[in-house]
This record gives sequence, C-alpha cells and structure tokens, in this order.
Amino acid sequence: MDSSDIERKRVVVIGGGLVGALNACFLARRNFQVDVYEAREDIRLATSARGRSINLALSYRGRQALKAIGLEDQIVSQGIPMRGRMIHNLSGKKSVLPYGTNSQYILSISRKNLNKDLLTAVETYPNAKVHFGQRLVKCNPEEGRITVVGSNKIPKDVTCDLIIGCDGAHSAVRTHLMKKPRFDYSQRYIPHGYMELTIPPRNGAYAMEPNYLHIWPRHTFMMIALANMEKSFTCTLFMPFEEFEKLRTSSDVLNFFKEYFPDSIPLIGEQALGEDFFLLPAQPLISIKCSSFHLKSRCVLMGDAAHAIVPFFGQGMNAGFEDCLVFDELMDKFNNDFSLCLPEFSRFRIPDSHAISDLSLYNYIEMRSHVNSWQFLLQTSIERFLHALMPSTFIPLYTMVTFSRIRYHEAVLRWHWQNKVINRGLCVFGSLMAMGGVYLLVSYISPRPLGYLRRLPWTGNRFFWNMGRISLQTLRSH
Amino acid sequence: MDSSDIERKRVVVIGGGLVGALNACFLARRNFQVDVYEAREDIRLATSARGRSINLALSYRGRQALKAIGLEDQIVSQGIPMRGRMIHNLSGKKSVLPYGTNSQYILSISRKNLNKDLLTAVETYPNAKVHFGQRLVKCNPEEGRITVVGSNKIPKDVTCDLIIGCDGAHSAVRTHLMKKPRFDYSQRYIPHGYMELTIPPRNGAYAMEPNYLHIWPRHTFMMIALANMEKSFTCTLFMPFEEFEKLRTSSDVLNFFKEYFPDSIPLIGEQALGEDFFLLPAQPLISIKCSSFHLKSRCVLMGDAAHAIVPFFGQGMNAGFEDCLVFDELMDKFNNDFSLCLPEFSRFRIPDSHAISDLSLYNYIEMRSHVNSWQFLLQTSIERFLHALMPSTFIPLYTMVTFSRIRYHEAVLRWHWQNKVINRGLCVFGSLMAMGGVYLLVSYISPRPLGYLRRLPWTGNRFFWNMGRISLQTLRSH
Repeated sequence: MDSSDIERKRVVVIGGGLVGALNACFLARRNFQVDVYEAREDIRLATSARGRSINLALSYRGRQALKAIGLEDQIVSQGIPMRGRMIHNLSGKKSVLPYGTNSQYILSISRKNLNKDLLTAVETYPNAKVHFGQRLVKCNPEEGRITVVGSNKIPKDVTCDLIIGCDGAHSAVRTHLMKKPRFDYSQRYIPHGYMELTIPPRNGAYAMEPNYLHIWPRHTFMMIALANMEKSFTCTLFMPFEEFEKLRTSSDVLNFFKEYFPDSIPLIGEQALGEDFFLLPAQPLISIKCSSFHLKSRCVLMGDAAHAIVPFFGQGMNAGFEDCLVFDELMDKFNNDFSLCLPEFSRFRIPDSHAISDLSLYNYIEMRSHVNSWQFLLQTSIERFLHALMPSTFIPLYTMVTFSRIRYHEAVLRWHWQNKVINRGLCVFGSLMAMGGVYLLVSYISPRPLGYLRRLPWTGNRFFWNMGRISLQTLRSH
Repeated sequence: MDSSDIERKRVVVIGGGLVGALNACFLARRNFQVDVYEAREDIRLATSARGRSINLALSYRGRQALKAIGLEDQIVSQGIPMRGRMIHNLSGKKSVLPYGTNSQYILSISRKNLNKDLLTAVETYPNAKVHFGQRLVKCNPEEGRITVVGSNKIPKDVTCDLIIGCDGAHSAVRTHLMKKPRFDYSQRYIPHGYMELTIPPRNGAYAMEPNYLHIWPRHTFMMIALANMEKSFTCTLFMPFEEFEKLRTSSDVLNFFKEYFPDSIPLIGEQALGEDFFLLPAQPLISIKCSSFHLKSRCVLMGDAAHAIVPFFGQGMNAGFEDCLVFDELMDKFNNDFSLCLPEFSRFRIPDSHAISDLSLYNYIEMRSHVNSWQFLLQTSIERFLHALMPSTFIPLYTMVTFSRIRYHEAVLRWHWQNKVINRGLCVFGSLMAMGGVYLLVSYISPRPLGYLRRLPWTGNRFFWNMGRISLQTLRSH
C-alpha cells in the first residue's frame, strides 16, 4: 500500500478508553484517517469520576507499547514503582516478596490520568479525531458501516475501511460479530466480587510503604492495596458474593475486619470503613474469551472487547496495550494490508489471550492462598536461584509475564516445563539428602561403618555437607 | 396457589417450535392462561418447508414427556423404529450394533409433522393460544413485560407472570438474560459442518433396511441415514469445513463418494449427488451452555435456548422435552409457586444439561471412529454381558441416556465408574488368561509339569477352560 492509499483509508475506533485511545495513536502515526467514537463525555472535562475501577499496574508489555508511540517516559513519571508484594499476616507481621531483580518493578497508575494523557496524545495528530458522547447503535462489520447517535438523538451513518472494537468487556462491536456464523464466545463470572475502600494519607504522607503491592491473603478471600500519587491507597477486597452478603451492618463489617484484617482498621478508619462498605454493592468480575478476533478484512476486536480477564495478574491493560503493539508490528510486516493483518492477528493473538486469561484466574489462588505457604516460598526461592544461574533458560512465571514480551502461551508452556524440572530435581535432591542422612547416622552409631560405605568416608561427608549448604542458601536467597 | 389464582396467572411462551408447543400443553393443563408467540407463520399452512433440519430420534425421555400430555401413542405411531446402528464399511459390508435389548428402540420422527401435531394439541386447550408471525423485539424479563411485532409492524406490549424462552439456539430471550449480571454463557462451533442428502425410495420401497440408523464411519468424518415415513432416507454428512471446501465440482464430490461411501452412490443417484451437494453450503453445528436458566421468578429458558447441543447422541429434542417434564414435576412439588420452581429448575437441570452437552460431543467421536474398532466391540459386548447379569447395577451408557430417565450427569458418573470396573476386570482376566496359557504350555512341553503346578492338574485345566468359554460367549453375545 503506498502512502496516498493509506491517507485515503479511514479507520474507525469504537471506544476511547485506554486501548482505544492508544490504538488511535498507533493508526494515526501510520497516516490513516482515524475517528474514535466514545459513548461517554470527555473525561478531561468531567468534574466527577463515574464508576469505580480497580487500580492499574503498568508493566513491561504496556510500557513497550507506550514507548512505541513515544509516551513511555511521560506515563512512567506519573506512576509509583512497586518492587514486590508486601504480605500482611493476621498478626500484623509484614514480609516482602520481591517481584524480580532489584531493578524490576511494576507501576501503580491512575486509570483516569492515563486515559486523559492518551486522549490528548490522539489529538496531537491532525488526521485523528475523538468524537465524544457518540454511542454505537448499529454496526455492519462486513461492509464497514456503523451508525452512531449523539446527544441530539439523530443517527449518523459512517463508512470506513476498518472498524476496531476497543469498547470493553461489554463490547457492542462484539455483539455484532457474535451473530456471524462460527464465532466462539464464552463469558464467565467468577463466584467472587470486589469492593474498593480507601486508606487516606496520614499527616500528608503515605500511611504504609508505597513501593509495594500490599496483600492480605486469607485463603478464600483477600484484600490488596495500591498507592496513589496523592498519598492515599486504594484497597480492593475480593471475596465470594455469599460472604459479602453476610455483612449487613457496620458492626458486621467492623467485626469481620477485626477478625481478618485488624491492621487495616486504623489505616482505613473505623467510621469510614463502616460507611464506605455500603456505598456500592460488591461488583462482579467477568472473564471473556472469544474466537476469532476479526471478521474478514473489515473489523477487529482488541483489549477487553476481545479478552476481558480477571485482574489478578495485573495484565488486563498490559495485554490490551500489547494487542495494539502486535497489530502495529503486523502492519509493518504486511505493509498495512488489512486482508493479511487481520487473520494473522487472530491466529497469533488468540492463544496468547486465552493463556493470560487462564493465568489470571490461577494467580488469584496464588495471591490469596499460596503466598502464605512454605511450599510456595521454597518454589519461589528455587526459581530465583535457577534464574540467577541460567537467566535465559530458567525464568520465573511472574517475570515472563510481567517483565518480558515472551508470548503468554509460551510462558505457560515454559512454566509447566520448569515446574516439572524443579519437582524432579527436588525428588533427586530429597533422595540424596535422605541417603546422606542415613550415611551420617550409620557413621555416628557405628565407629566402623559398613564395608561399602567405608570406601567414601571423606568425599561422601563433603558431598552431603555441600548439598545441605546449597539448599540452605537457596532457602535464604530471597 | 389455589385454582382461581392459577387461572388468573398468565404465562407467555416465546417460540412455537417443538419445546415451546409441548411446554404450552403442560402449562395449559395446569389452567394457566398461556400465550405462545412464534416469529414464523403457522407451519401447518406453509406450503414449503423452510430450511433443513437434522432428522429427529425420539427416545425414552421425549416419550415420557409426550405420555404426560397424552400424546405418546399418536406420535409413536408416526415414527419408524430403529433397533440399532447399521455400520457400512468401506467394502460395502454391513454389520448391526443393537441399541439395547430386543424390545428397545428409538424412533425416526419427522420434525415438521411432530411440530404440527404439538401445535394442534396446544389449540385443544381453550386457555391457550398460539400467535403466529409475532416476533419478540423487546423483553424485560425482570418485570414480565415483552413487546412483539407482527406483520402490521405495530409493536404490541404484553405483560405476564412468567416468560418461558423456548426460542431455540439463537434465543432472543436469552440475549436479554445475558445482559444481567452473573449470567454465564458459552457458544462454541465445532470445526465440523453438516450437509443433508436424500436416498429416494426404490420401486416404491425403502432402498435400505429402514429399522436401523445407518452409519458410514470414516474416523475424521461420517455419514448417517435415517428413514422417513415416505420410504426415503435423509442422509447427513458430517465433516470438517475444510474438507467440504475441497469439494468444488460435481466430479470432486463423485470421486470423494467413490472413495469413502461407494455403496451410497447408487442409492442417492450419481446425478442427484452432484447437484444436491451444491444446493446449500455445509451448515455449522453449535454447542451452547449457560447458567442459570432463570431470572428471579419471572423468566426461564428451556430446550435449545438453554442448552443447544450437537446432534450426535440424538438427545437435543429429548433433553428439551425432559426440561418440560422436569418443570412440570417441580410445579407439582412446589404447588405451582414460580418463586420456588424456577431456582430449583436451574439448580437441578444445569448439571444435567452440561452433561448431555459433553456426552453429545463425545458421541461424535464414538460414532465416526470407535464403532469401527475391535476395542469398542469388546467393550460393548462386556457391557451387554454385565447388564444381562446385573440389570440395575450395570447399565451401558447408551441405555442410560436413551432408554431411561437416569439424570444425565448421574449417567456420566456411573459410566466412568463402570469403565473403571471393566478395565480392572480386564486386567485381572488378562493376567489369569496369561497364567493359564503358561500352565497349559508347560503341561504340553513337559509330561511332568513343575511340582507346584502338579497339585492342581484337573481343576486348573477346568478353570482356564471355563474362563476361555465365558470370554468367547461374551464376545459372541451381541
């Protein structure tokens, strides 16, 4: 496609949220005529934020996408680095589990500010325009025709060469694809809901260490807290709906927090806790998979519209941003040819989106339960040890997902392989330790050990001594 | 609920297909005011059948539902009994696999005639009415309000106490439930499509044995044929879409049939085959699961609207009819109280619908591939033998699903248990046979067998002789 062809091509992006706005930047950079239709009003003009949102954690994949459009530094400067998980035990004791090496961290980001910055970035391109308050009411994805309705209630028809659905988990574009034959789709609500609470600043400063993701893991439920730029923390309580329903009065809530999150009560404030808990009911969490992501060479889904995931790996926004980056890379590869790009995007991206969806569900169990177990700590220590030894061969799952662009589905395959290696290694190690124990015991009881053992008195001792030392080091290494 | 309360209650059934019409009969019998809204015109007046449909196989569950409204004998008299599968091998050799005992059979039924009879049955109730050509355009399931539009294009609002969505796999009622929070849903298209062909009567008679379900199993694809009352057969070819796409001309089709279904060519007719194959493209097959089936005490889904399944167990209609029967049984149990019936219907019926959905997918593999293997024939023989021995303890899967009302999910559990028992039994049996073989060999080679074997010369021979006889009988018993 030569440059004049590209300038004549019109791309419509449905949704001016994070993924929609970022995508508009990518496409505007390629000189397409880009129109973004957003149902809500311009959030830069809105006085109050509508609805709530789980805090965002920006990591490598999202940063790489922002870097590609030259926004990484600006966005990162407004984030708060989180270097690990800070586990709050029932007793109030806190312990740190680093996310990676000393130089690796994720960033706590304000969704609203990020969205504002991205919208402003779109508007720097003369060939891109964001139309606010314009709701999609009809969509003919096969022919590239849409109808939007604004505040004047008069439907407006728009034709274009490509429709990109970035309109979130409850995507209107996707509902039109669903009617087409052979479109696979699943939506699943997990039995747990979430509720947001706030830890206000204390004397103008953070009330807890800001550079960690705070977790109160309680096996069947958990609370987390992420720092905001204005020195407060946003806490999110994840819990089965039936447990939420048991808490009917302020005193129920207070008793529940006294039992499970006692150290958080002075931080949130007793009165605020009793009131804020009943401001909004617990919100549901949905997991959406679909296939394929495109229809012919006219329509494609990205972000939550293609793969809404639960928030427990902090990858929702990052996966959506990586969608835009992957699509941009394919546009390079296929010289802006939609008829080649779109099928390849589906083929390439669907296994990855399914993988991060499953990993996100898995990570809820890890966060709320495993982080408290010695097996998990042992496993983590061994992984960190092996990663230090063989940095490119052996990479902990969290590192692959959060600090690399290894394809999500490959990360899952490597993770399974690594677990197998560790488990086999532990078996061998355990057997050797047991044999060593027996040898030492026999040596201790009898001054003259059995004949065949006598042949390796010194080397044997030395070997088992070293094995023990290595294993202790491994345990201590985190 | 006393009888005058019931007579004041209004139930709206969306869809006048098989399940909708049957359901209307059940509800009219309970004296509710029943209105059925069907988007199409009255099929009893239509001159041509629109669309195609896979043949129906009526079995026990469906018959029990028809029996409850007094229609069983009438419907059964219009069906053609099928006593087993008739397998067509590549060489043209045919073999029979009975479905159950001599008295057990399923019935090949015309969808159109059954639907006509059911609609006529609805109209025998003075308190029930079917409104044809009335399409659902709006639905407020929480408040029991719907809007339908007829040929005059004027929307009509209807309020009622209960909305029952029996509007098939692409249910409009379900799309309204999907918008409600915590409604789980999945739709999956299998990679295979289907195409219908016809074997016309030969000299006014059936061209093949009518009392069997004919199968041409070819591992990755298959063709089946069911007899019609007018002496023809409807063949259905199930095959991956990519294989369908390879057949572009009449001669491609003919060559394909010569290679895989040679004995069917003279039956279908060479010319008809080449033409009919291109009348319609291969049709997709969808599998739909959702949860829950109801919303509050106002709306409930039944039949394909709740659980569209692939047709390979012949249970689509039977499961839908059993929905109506189960609901009717719950209405008895809870004295027509919707607020108790609806949640219980979801709780009770969802595991069963998920089970028959999975079984139907499994049975495709059994039909197109397993039926040709000696392991399957051995397994089937053992199952039949054990069933004859212990009729209530050991029941083959097909019998549980097709000839009983054992709950589908219980049938799956029992099937897994039975398979485990058979496999363990085969291990023991195999070991005994091997030991017997060794014993006989040793006896044959040496006139004086080893000392410890000499102790059981006669009983040993006798035992292994009997084991062999029993196993041969088992193999021959079907």
